[in-house]
Amino acid sequence: MSNEVRSLNEECGVFGIWGHPDASRVTYFGLHSLQHRGQEGAGIVSNDSGKLNGTRGLGLLSEVFKDERHLNQLTGHAAIGHVRYATAGTGSVDNIQPFLFKFYDGDFALAHNGNLTNAKSLRKTLEQNGAIFHSNSDTEILMHLIRRSQKETLCERMKEALNTVKGGFAYLMMTKDSMVAALDPNGFRPLSIGQMVNGAYVVASETCALEVVGATFIQDVNPGEIITINDEGLTVEQFTKDTQHAICSMEYIYFARPDSNIAGVNVHSARKNMGRILAQEAEIDADMVVGVPNSSLSAASGYAEESGIPYEMGLVKNQYVARTFIQPTQELREQGVRMKLSAVRGVVAGKRVIMVDDSIVRGTTSRRIVNLLKEAGAKEVHVRIASPPLRYPCFYGIDIQTRKELIAANHSVEEIREVIGADSLSFLSEDGLIHAIGLNFDAPYSGLCMAYFNGDYPTPLYDYEEHYQATLKEKMSFL
Amino acid sequence: MSNEVRSLNEECGVFGIWGHPDASRVTYFGLHSLQHRGQEGAGIVSNDSGKLNGTRGLGLLSEVFKDERHLNQLTGHAAIGHVRYATAGTGSVDNIQPFLFKFYDGDFALAHNGNLTNAKSLRKTLEQNGAIFHSNSDTEILMHLIRRSQKETLCERMKEALNTVKGGFAYLMMTKDSMVAALDPNGFRPLSIGQMVNGAYVVASETCALEVVGATFIQDVNPGEIITINDEGLTVEQFTKDTQHAICSMEYIYFARPDSNIAGVNVHSARKNMGRILAQEAEIDADMVVGVPNSSLSAASGYAEESGIPYEMGLVKNQYVARTFIQPTQELREQGVRMKLSAVRGVVAGKRVIMVDDSIVRGTTSRRIVNLLKEAGAKEVHVRIASPPLRYPCFYGIDIQTRKELIAANHSVEEIREVIGADSLSFLSEDGLIHAIGLNFDAPYSGLCMAYFNGDYPTPLYDYEEHYQATLKEKMSFL
Amino acid sequence: MSNEVRSLNEECGVFGIWGHPDASRVTYFGLHSLQHRGQEGAGIVSNDSGKLNGTRGLGLLSEVFKDERHLNQLTGHAAIGHVRYATAGTGSVDNIQPFLFKFYDGDFALAHNGNLTNAKSLRKTLEQNGAIFHSNSDTEILMHLIRRSQKETLCERMKEALNTVKGGFAYLMMTKDSMVAALDPNGFRPLSIGQMVNGAYVVASETCALEVVGATFIQDVNPGEIITINDEGLTVEQFTKDTQHAICSMEYIYFARPDSNIAGVNVHSARKNMGRILAQEAEIDADMVVGVPNSSLSAASGYAEESGIPYEMGLVKNQYVARTFIQPTQELREQGVRMKLSAVRGVVAGKRVIMVDDSIVRGTTSRRIVNLLKEAGAKEVHVRIASPPLRYPCFYGIDIQTRKELIAANHSVEEIREVIGADSLSFLSEDGLIHAIGLNFDAPYSGLCMAYFNGDYPTPLYDYEEHYQATLKEKMSFL
Amino acid sequence: MSNEVRSLNEECGVFGIWGHPDASRVTYFGLHSLQHRGQEGAGIVSNDSGKLNGTRGLGLLSEVFKDERHLNQLTGHAAIGHVRYATAGTGSVDNIQPFLFKFYDGDFALAHNGNLTNAKSLRKTLEQNGAIFHSNSDTEILMHLIRRSQKETLCERMKEALNTVKGGFAYLMMTKDSMVAALDPNGFRPLSIGQMVNGAYVVASETCALEVVGATFIQDVNPGEIITINDEGLTVEQFTKDTQHAICSMEYIYFARPDSNIAGVNVHSARKNMGRILAQEAEIDADMVVGVPNSSLSAASGYAEESGIPYEMGLVKNQYVARTFIQPTQELREQGVRMKLSAVRGVVAGKRVIMVDDSIVRGTTSRRIVNLLKEAGAKEVHVRIASPPLRYPCFYGIDIQTRKELIAANHSVEEIREVIGADSLSFLSEDGLIHAIGLNFDAPYSGLCMAYFNGDYPTPLYDYEEHYQATLKEKMSFL
Repeated sequence: MSNEVRSLNEECGVFGIWGHPDASRVTYFGLHSLQHRGQEGAGIVSNDSGKLNGTRGLGLLSEVFKDERHLNQLTGHAAIGHVRYATAGTGSVDNIQPFLFKFYDGDFALAHNGNLTNAKSLRKTLEQNGAIFHSNSDTEILMHLIRRSQKETLCERMKEALNTVKGGFAYLMMTKDSMVAALDPNGFRPLSIGQMVNGAYVVASETCALEVVGATFIQDVNPGEIITINDEGLTVEQFTKDTQHAICSMEYIYFARPDSNIAGVNVHSARKNMGRILAQEAEIDADMVVGVPNSSLSAASGYAEESGIPYEMGLVKNQYVARTFIQPTQELREQGVRMKLSAVRGVVAGKRVIMVDDSIVRGTTSRRIVNLLKEAGAKEVHVRIASPPLRYPCFYGIDIQTRKELIAANHSVEEIREVIGADSLSFLSEDGLIHAIGLNFDAPYSGLCMAYFNGDYPTPLYDYEEHYQATLKEKMSFL
Repeated sequence: MSNEVRSLNEECGVFGIWGHPDASRVTYFGLHSLQHRGQEGAGIVSNDSGKLNGTRGLGLLSEVFKDERHLNQLTGHAAIGHVRYATAGTGSVDNIQPFLFKFYDGDFALAHNGNLTNAKSLRKTLEQNGAIFHSNSDTEILMHLIRRSQKETLCERMKEALNTVKGGFAYLMMTKDSMVAALDPNGFRPLSIGQMVNGAYVVASETCALEVVGATFIQDVNPGEIITINDEGLTVEQFTKDTQHAICSMEYIYFARPDSNIAGVNVHSARKNMGRILAQEAEIDADMVVGVPNSSLSAASGYAEESGIPYEMGLVKNQYVARTFIQPTQELREQGVRMKLSAVRGVVAGKRVIMVDDSIVRGTTSRRIVNLLKEAGAKEVHVRIASPPLRYPCFYGIDIQTRKELIAANHSVEEIREVIGADSLSFLSEDGLIHAIGLNFDAPYSGLCMAYFNGDYPTPLYDYEEHYQATLKEKMSFL
Repeated sequence: MSNEVRSLNEECGVFGIWGHPDASRVTYFGLHSLQHRGQEGAGIVSNDSGKLNGTRGLGLLSEVFKDERHLNQLTGHAAIGHVRYATAGTGSVDNIQPFLFKFYDGDFALAHNGNLTNAKSLRKTLEQNGAIFHSNSDTEILMHLIRRSQKETLCERMKEALNTVKGGFAYLMMTKDSMVAALDPNGFRPLSIGQMVNGAYVVASETCALEVVGATFIQDVNPGEIITINDEGLTVEQFTKDTQHAICSMEYIYFARPDSNIAGVNVHSARKNMGRILAQEAEIDADMVVGVPNSSLSAASGYAEESGIPYEMGLVKNQYVARTFIQPTQELREQGVRMKLSAVRGVVAGKRVIMVDDSIVRGTTSRRIVNLLKEAGAKEVHVRIASPPLRYPCFYGIDIQTRKELIAANHSVEEIREVIGADSLSFLSEDGLIHAIGLNFDAPYSGLCMAYFNGDYPTPLYDYEEHYQATLKEKMSFL
Repeated sequence: MSNEVRSLNEECGVFGIWGHPDASRVTYFGLHSLQHRGQEGAGIVSNDSGKLNGTRGLGLLSEVFKDERHLNQLTGHAAIGHVRYATAGTGSVDNIQPFLFKFYDGDFALAHNGNLTNAKSLRKTLEQNGAIFHSNSDTEILMHLIRRSQKETLCERMKEALNTVKGGFAYLMMTKDSMVAALDPNGFRPLSIGQMVNGAYVVASETCALEVVGATFIQDVNPGEIITINDEGLTVEQFTKDTQHAICSMEYIYFARPDSNIAGVNVHSARKNMGRILAQEAEIDADMVVGVPNSSLSAASGYAEESGIPYEMGLVKNQYVARTFIQPTQELREQGVRMKLSAVRGVVAGKRVIMVDDSIVRGTTSRRIVNLLKEAGAKEVHVRIASPPLRYPCFYGIDIQTRKELIAANHSVEEIREVIGADSLSFLSEDGLIHAIGLNFDAPYSGLCMAYFNGDYPTPLYDYEEHYQATLKEKMSFL
């Protein structure tokens, strides 16, 4: 999927380090490798002998931390950071994490990746009991639960709070004397731990961040785990035993960086496998295989290798796309003015093209790319999607919460083919996807969350239950 | 070549349009597709019924033209634009083009891609005769020559001026009633003409810009041609008959966008051919082929296809690299902190890797990438370069003017292999390169400039003659 | 007092309006006239049919609201705004007001001018009961008290909260259906109400803001009053009956704009009276009276009129002083390089000058100005201060909380004269000040707070009690 | 005249220094004190052992030189700087001075205050001979004349050039080995020389800049002088003997800072005299004298002293007026929303006010201020203008070049009174002005230029001759 019309959005990435003299700077580099998980805001909080200092702002990491001075203020041997994706319109700095709290009994910072399914009701109950929220982010809820817990120790309070929130969450917290990571009981979001040569512990949403800072992978944070890191070392505990793997399959398909491993599986290799199995499932004779840059290149090369059809660069993406780019007017667009993605006439003209993409959300992007290829002279365009049709919303951290937007929720494959103008269209099967990724947890779908494809949500939906029923009704109205 | 340490720099890209109601906006999109040719500054001058208005500034196009207002001021049916690469330290807006001049007898604007070989002596002579220069750019020289010419018509004066300057140049000019494009007698730099559906003529450094604005390719500007476009249409003339093709081979190897065609040859296809021929010339047994992103991906896939060795994504480039990015300290670098390029451990660990890159300049980048792969567990790294060794400076528009920087000017292939730490190293042969591109002009090297590889400059070097002799002496001192 | 070294800082200004179609824009102009009360940050919250929207930022009002778009988003018929002075180092946007809260049962916004004397203990108690603070401002405390109150109605809850906080405060609040203003039981800070021609009610820290938006003065908010404005009109209630006027005398002396009236007394006229009485109390023969621009010009002209000695412009202030101005190095300063204030050699050379200033804090500024005048050739410089010596800290909203900084707390008038290098020095007497302002409330000092001069604080000091004792001890150690 | 609608605009200020290790920083402070002479752009060029470096930009000095780094680059023992006023719309950085030229035989920088009367014809002639201009500023002309001169030495060439340009000019130039100041044969613009304690020579448009950098006044640059300052010291020469003083009277009335001396006369004192004589010429019974801030305060205090009527602060100007301030809508303006200037109701209500202003240009500002005072309750407003009626355009450096804008060119005093709504109106007489300033050069009007008042231009008007005749005709059409 090109991001010409980006429709699936990850909510965040987190990075933390304990035990390094240049902790905030290492965090900066770690976050930089997670920038693909959120481009709307970024922040870092450092811990200098128990005193926490933070900086956060709207925009890319390099816009928030413009020069050395921004990092030099964040002194200390530990730090946590966050990159955030925010839905349009709510772009207030108040929502940018990590949140930093200054209590009379010590500072506390909090960063979060995921989405809670009982946030709305928890928030209302808390407000009715005098709680004051300063953002419209779910993340503050955990802080209130911790502060209101009657348990003796901070760790006990955290565990109680973690058992109260529901849904998908990966939390990274900084107290005055420790860094704490916790993952929801299904492990929807990836979270891994590594160690640098100097002994510093590192926590990150993806293993690519471990590589980038030169850290060695130690372990994934497992579902239901709370891991405390401090000057004594690393302690792993379970805040709940009631766990079952349901790793977000979209991480493998689209979100994660190809150089990351999730649950031990390399993302690029998984994608290449998706392409290979797709080639087996949906063979067709053609002159070339073309991947939609950048996220579909692995799948496309897998398809090409398996099919023996040459892989060609039939689409080129402009690498200088800025977020503030001026858009073509409708008139210019009709005259053929393009911006971000170009079809390569010299390559595709007169040829039968297999166009491999990772997913179809609304169908508008696919239609545009098929059209680009045809305008550049492609004789045939056969679209091959390296994942099953997206038919159900996600409530665990991906920004699609209504079925109205999902073309496959309301249309058959043949209808979609017609909408996007392709000569043929095939999706990877659910089994093909599961097989391509190749997890083998003792859980449904070998440990993957397949809810977007089949509506089989691994948890109750709480506050979204009603919403979900409504979206089902929406669907009815379409049929 | 990754741009971690970018060492070869194109000087510019130009774009112009005549006959469109939204001329400056089309120019913006055309320039955007040429942004890879220059990132230090950009400008647009529009022509509104003979009155020229311009905006220019330092930075990327999207930084100079931050919002609609910047374009809305540039009214008129015609416009020319420029993106500029500038050597560090001279980052003054005075040097950003197009240059706009307001004469009592009419406005004039001028944009330039290339490098003159007699600029220094022309400038001195002109100053001795009262000329005042406002930039340290070569480009102003043409303006002075035109204004001082005693010829009757503006066109005659332009021709005289074009016959006075020497070296590599592609000029794009705007007078009150026409747009004029001109190319040096060797055609070092690409320059093409297209037409939009509404009839508007478009001139661009690369054909990718024609595609992006929906224009159909009409013709390349040929060596020694001056092409005038006005409300009457397009007129092609020769300012000199003494021409001979010597197209910059680095355009095919590295600079141009893969979706551009130069002299009718698609750049991606040429690069894929370079990879294929390299596979024939420098075969080796290995587990995978890995291209250095982004410019070497075409050559790497050609190598993979020809050799039958699978193509893998063993290197990943962070797409969020900003120009103002904070750098890791030396200490962090030693601890393994990386920024822009990562090797994919999950892919390369334990494997024999063929690493394909487009060129080697200083050798530092290659050494770093080989090292990345080895640190990520690659068992063997065999480097294959899809072009011949760079041994001689360029005086026609590429920013390398001393041999000291060129590792291949001073070391044997075996020495370079040792420096970069590869298990083996091979370069494409000169014949392989010429064959891969496949031009067939009646000129040496089928119409390519091969001077960087063999020192066979297709023109006298004028002001650089002495400089060139000195660089040869430098070489001696190394031997 | 020139602001070359500004030492007394007001904490804030507030402005609100109810019942105007362009409420946020009127608020902008109202705040602009209060900019002298705080230059470190500004914000506006508007009420659009019960939904509150806000913008706030660091810097001057014109920096926070850079163009029309910033105001156009703040739709609605009511708005409140705030300009803030913040002590150095705490310059985080988190502290900029109005604070905007989004509760499940309605939005709420809050702005504050003043300083609480029991903030620290209230905050600790609240945190121990689960409250979470997001700023280090006192202002949030009232919000927590309101939300935690068990009273039935919002108005009852506000009253309870207002009776819990102690010290100096002028609050301006916006609920979904009303605007509420409240003043502490001593009325330390000014707060006035007016009405525009269209019937809209306006609340402002100073009456100059009423004038600037074309509103007619209705009444001052009196000590202990809570005034609710909504679509039904204006309701005045008392949250406490235990009130006694103690209006901050520094408002008359230095903070307020000369065109404001406080408790019916025009500030310029009060200052001119201070100058007149000072001339009676501290007569001296001289050639001219010179005021320190800008705040001492009224007092100086009063002195001149009373004494019959001509008023001259012997000091000129550069009106282009930016907050980010580059400072002269120590070396240049020693060579005589000045920036903000210049003595006019052509006026003062050879003359006996009476220099009138409004106050002396540290003495450094006075020393510098006396020195400027002498370097410009003044034969004698007689310093006349139009207020009594500042000897005690303020705990109600002025940013001086330690006696160490106050030269008059630790030195006799003769010692100060020597420090500042004046030929003679006199201060206005306490009686003179009270007489010049001319209030006649049935309260000590006719209703003025004179604590800075005589330590007679009109309230208990709560959390500052210990601090205050310490500053007394400090004083001992000086003696 | 308040600058609510500023109508008279000075064109520039210059400052230069030779022989100081921190030359560019001293220039920064010097320029800062000249900021009132131009707010649209600023620049500094320094001389480091013959190599010139420069920075310039749009906006206030503090916006162009944002931090130390901007100054630290401008190394060297000498520097010249410029602040510029530019007419709206031409706000291009290309016009900001000093202009810096890099010739093969040495660098050269040039700054200019004034206006040439033969610029248009000189420019056309130069262009016809091959000259290329890069700005639409007159200033470049001198550079072309110098470079094209056939004289032997640079100094001879400068003299020839200075004799070719006509009109009002104060030039400050920097060559590789000297700083050169030159003034037109009438000395329209002020230009003075001073010396710092370390021996460094300083040149500045006003003496206030000498004071600000701690320099002692040495001499004014006299009409027709060219003064060369280098390591050998200071050399004064005449480039023409045909000189006659005609100092711009508006410098005394409005432009210059009150602390400057021009031709030995202090500006504040001159203004106070204007007020005194005005009180004699136009006596009236009233309750108070009010000056329009800031430029009329001196004249108002003179009027008050002479008449014995008390001087009051009846008008207050908001000191936080930013150039980018958001304006009230027409609707708000009608409702009484004001921004920059407020009348003080508590002072003027019910009173007979004498409002003293320095000049009337269009009359719109005066009407607004009279209206402000009346709305604030003034019973009568008697306007007294401390200069004669402005009836003729200026061609020597003040930005009024057509009579259409000048209300006094087309209306009688009684008509103006009616337009501005005053109860009475009087202007200072021409003799009163000349007497108040008190020059005694052997020249018409004692050495003042009185052309704005009586059309008696001290020079031929060259290119403006026709224009001037046209403006006379305009006048006819009004009558």
